[in-house]
Amino acid sequence: METNSSGGAGGGLGSESSTMILHNAVVVTMDSDCRVFQNGAVFIDIDKIKAIGQSRDILQRFSHVAHHILDLHGQILLPGFVNTHVHTSQQLGRGIADDVDLMTWLHHRIWPYESNMTEEDSYISTLLCGVELIHSGVTCFAEAGGQHVTGMARAVELLGLRACLTESIMDSGDGLPPSWGIRTTDECLQSQKKLYEKHNNTADGRIRIWLGIRQVMNSTDRLLLETRDAARELKTGIHMHVAEIPYENQVVMETRKVDHGTVTFLDKIDFLQENLLAAHTVWVNDTEIGFLSRSGVKVSHCPASAMRMLGFARIREMLNAGITVSLGTDGAPSNNRMSIVDEMYLASLINKGREVYAKGTTDPTALPAETLLKMVTINGAKSVLWDNEIGSLEIGKKADMVVINPFSWSMVPIHDCISNLVYCMRTENVVSVMCNGRWIMRDKKILNVDEEEVISLAKEASSKLLRRAGIKLPSRMNVIP
Amino acid sequence: METNSSGGAGGGLGSESSTMILHNAVVVTMDSDCRVFQNGAVFIDIDKIKAIGQSRDILQRFSHVAHHILDLHGQILLPGFVNTHVHTSQQLGRGIADDVDLMTWLHHRIWPYESNMTEEDSYISTLLCGVELIHSGVTCFAEAGGQHVTGMARAVELLGLRACLTESIMDSGDGLPPSWGIRTTDECLQSQKKLYEKHNNTADGRIRIWLGIRQVMNSTDRLLLETRDAARELKTGIHMHVAEIPYENQVVMETRKVDHGTVTFLDKIDFLQENLLAAHTVWVNDTEIGFLSRSGVKVSHCPASAMRMLGFARIREMLNAGITVSLGTDGAPSNNRMSIVDEMYLASLINKGREVYAKGTTDPTALPAETLLKMVTINGAKSVLWDNEIGSLEIGKKADMVVINPFSWSMVPIHDCISNLVYCMRTENVVSVMCNGRWIMRDKKILNVDEEEVISLAKEASSKLLRRAGIKLPSRMNVIP
Repeated sequence: METNSSGGAGGGLGSESSTMILHNAVVVTMDSDCRVFQNGAVFIDIDKIKAIGQSRDILQRFSHVAHHILDLHGQILLPGFVNTHVHTSQQLGRGIADDVDLMTWLHHRIWPYESNMTEEDSYISTLLCGVELIHSGVTCFAEAGGQHVTGMARAVELLGLRACLTESIMDSGDGLPPSWGIRTTDECLQSQKKLYEKHNNTADGRIRIWLGIRQVMNSTDRLLLETRDAARELKTGIHMHVAEIPYENQVVMETRKVDHGTVTFLDKIDFLQENLLAAHTVWVNDTEIGFLSRSGVKVSHCPASAMRMLGFARIREMLNAGITVSLGTDGAPSNNRMSIVDEMYLASLINKGREVYAKGTTDPTALPAETLLKMVTINGAKSVLWDNEIGSLEIGKKADMVVINPFSWSMVPIHDCISNLVYCMRTENVVSVMCNGRWIMRDKKILNVDEEEVISLAKEASSKLLRRAGIKLPSRMNVIP
Repeated sequence: METNSSGGAGGGLGSESSTMILHNAVVVTMDSDCRVFQNGAVFIDIDKIKAIGQSRDILQRFSHVAHHILDLHGQILLPGFVNTHVHTSQQLGRGIADDVDLMTWLHHRIWPYESNMTEEDSYISTLLCGVELIHSGVTCFAEAGGQHVTGMARAVELLGLRACLTESIMDSGDGLPPSWGIRTTDECLQSQKKLYEKHNNTADGRIRIWLGIRQVMNSTDRLLLETRDAARELKTGIHMHVAEIPYENQVVMETRKVDHGTVTFLDKIDFLQENLLAAHTVWVNDTEIGFLSRSGVKVSHCPASAMRMLGFARIREMLNAGITVSLGTDGAPSNNRMSIVDEMYLASLINKGREVYAKGTTDPTALPAETLLKMVTINGAKSVLWDNEIGSLEIGKKADMVVINPFSWSMVPIHDCISNLVYCMRTENVVSVMCNGRWIMRDKKILNVDEEEVISLAKEASSKLLRRAGIKLPSRMNVIP
């Protein structure tokens, strides 16, 4: 047995047969009883939590069988965060589309960028994105639908993350770059089935393949319905951008003959199911919130990109209607901070502020800290259909967890630990991250890739990609070379 | 001559007679021509910038007289950020008032907290707050009006920061804790004049004393008018919370007999002047924006606390009307992240999003990155009436500057340097900070105080203060001790 009591989160699981105790931590379980062990411990066997409770008790029961015992010195242990809407293949495009209108964003920046990516670009982009996700405490994410899933999968396997990967899928729509070419419905479905066969349940079960629908304006009815049926057959989820802008709803009303927008249409064709992860979902009325609630659709709220590009999602109303709402960062050209920690802070502020338009004053009691913590943990796990294994610290679940150091200038004093986690914590307070029983970051060092090398690869690949795509950005100031 | 070319911002000004070159930096001057030197340098003599330009040129002209030459290895050099609304004495109260309504916030948390502070508490609170301000690149701040200015001044002098300190001033108002006692108008003015005599222009000229008005509902007309006259006489500024909530405007309409709110009333009594720093200023109509613009009043926009407690300030309209708008963090129980870097990001998102209520869609082009950088630099300097010496990197101005490391996972790739500074930069990308020609943080290490000691003092003082004030926070989860 190795005892490690140094600061931070030293110690680790060296081999497949390892067992480990993490003790002397504030353990915020996020279980259904909202238990917080003030001086708690977790006993891990290979990739699973075998016991959880008070440190004294866990040490007494399991010290004799633990290969590693790690003292967390009063730091906070939480379930790994789940980021439910990330465009990993857009990370190399961070900063290419700031302060421009939506049409410029799409037609002159994002589409040229995405349509010029290689599989290697996607691999490097996902590596860079993954580094940022891990630093912000994410152990599992849902890809929003991007380019070259095989590239993503290589990166996710290497990084040690858990992910639901999704291809960007469109079988119709105007204005796409000619070089891209529209795929037929059959090609879309075949491509995804191949990806499923190749990658689903790989990387020790950390990778799952989901089906994608980029958005309703780029989808035929046939694509929607066959995607729904294929997802049922494969027992997987569907990730789709839903009701992002008022224009989308207008187009749907005109072309699909419904009286409101995308959600009404999707309900009409019986597309709304428990396995649908609807991203953004900003422009919905009460009836549509009812549809989402009744059908068990999950919503990924992305506060930063919504504020910038879309509008104020009706999150309080959705939560009140019993909808499982989680949080996402969206992609780097929409946000550009890819930190779920910042998203928690933002979601709190924006949804407290939004009440001013309904009530005349903000509502500082809206979306309290405990709700936000749920959104990034157990609600995230439910959204990616993985809550039987992740999203809370419970016996039998996977050991996906993060260690937070709350003793720095950014989080003290700690009068209210739970609220400090949401309102004060910064990405940099996340010191160690474990996924599937293995440390993927310890003492802020990413373990499975060399950060400097990833950054260097990303710089080179992104410059080449922008040149290839013909994307030139205007200068903002008077630059003297 | 000492040449230092190690990574980060090594080297320093050892003595009063020192001269220094910082070179090989992207120098974002924020001067009126918006010049950015791609490979720039600054020559500093004691506390002032003596020359600025391309590295080659500056090195050629000044290498022979420079005591220190520091290679910044392509990092970004910016003017020090100015945080124009900070409650330094509230830092020990971080987390005491989260997710509660405004009346609970004020009557059961903030007033009991503030009324039970000692001068030592204020000193420790300002130390802790100052550590966070420096880490976020702030070299100058405007205290919003707090407890025990002498305690604040001791901390500011020690930290090496620049500040406009202000006492919390009220000479009327209901609901204040009985132990606090309302001071008379004369006592309010006398107290501030004494503080001015004692502290103004101390700490090598880094400390200035301003006059305070907590808010209109706690001020008699006489206090307002005599404060205005005293500020004119002392040639200093006035810091006041203005038009924070709709209720404030209603009370003013009823008690002060005007047809809109606080700004209309302040205009009527001829209180609006160029030396007024109006914090928040959320609830103003077009006419009132006109009053503020014509009189040259400066506005401190605090996006986080506004979203949480107050509402959406009309920042785009104010900027369009030519008003000098800067950014503030407000106090720790209102925010709770005290980072002006986060505030830039927030101000961008919130003001892009707010347009949805006027236009039906957000406006991603509103408040572009270059505007936000102005708000935290030159506009901040104008707001604290100090732009003759700070707010931009120009010959003759004080050497207040920050070094940003943009090469980490949080900021790469850098396709658009200016936009990455606003949308990607995090507090932790700020590596070194210089104020008045002296480094106060280097390679993320605060130089003039021991961070660990400050944190330890703050933990103890804040626990005692909460006990004294009788503030007890309900538990949010099921805590097992």
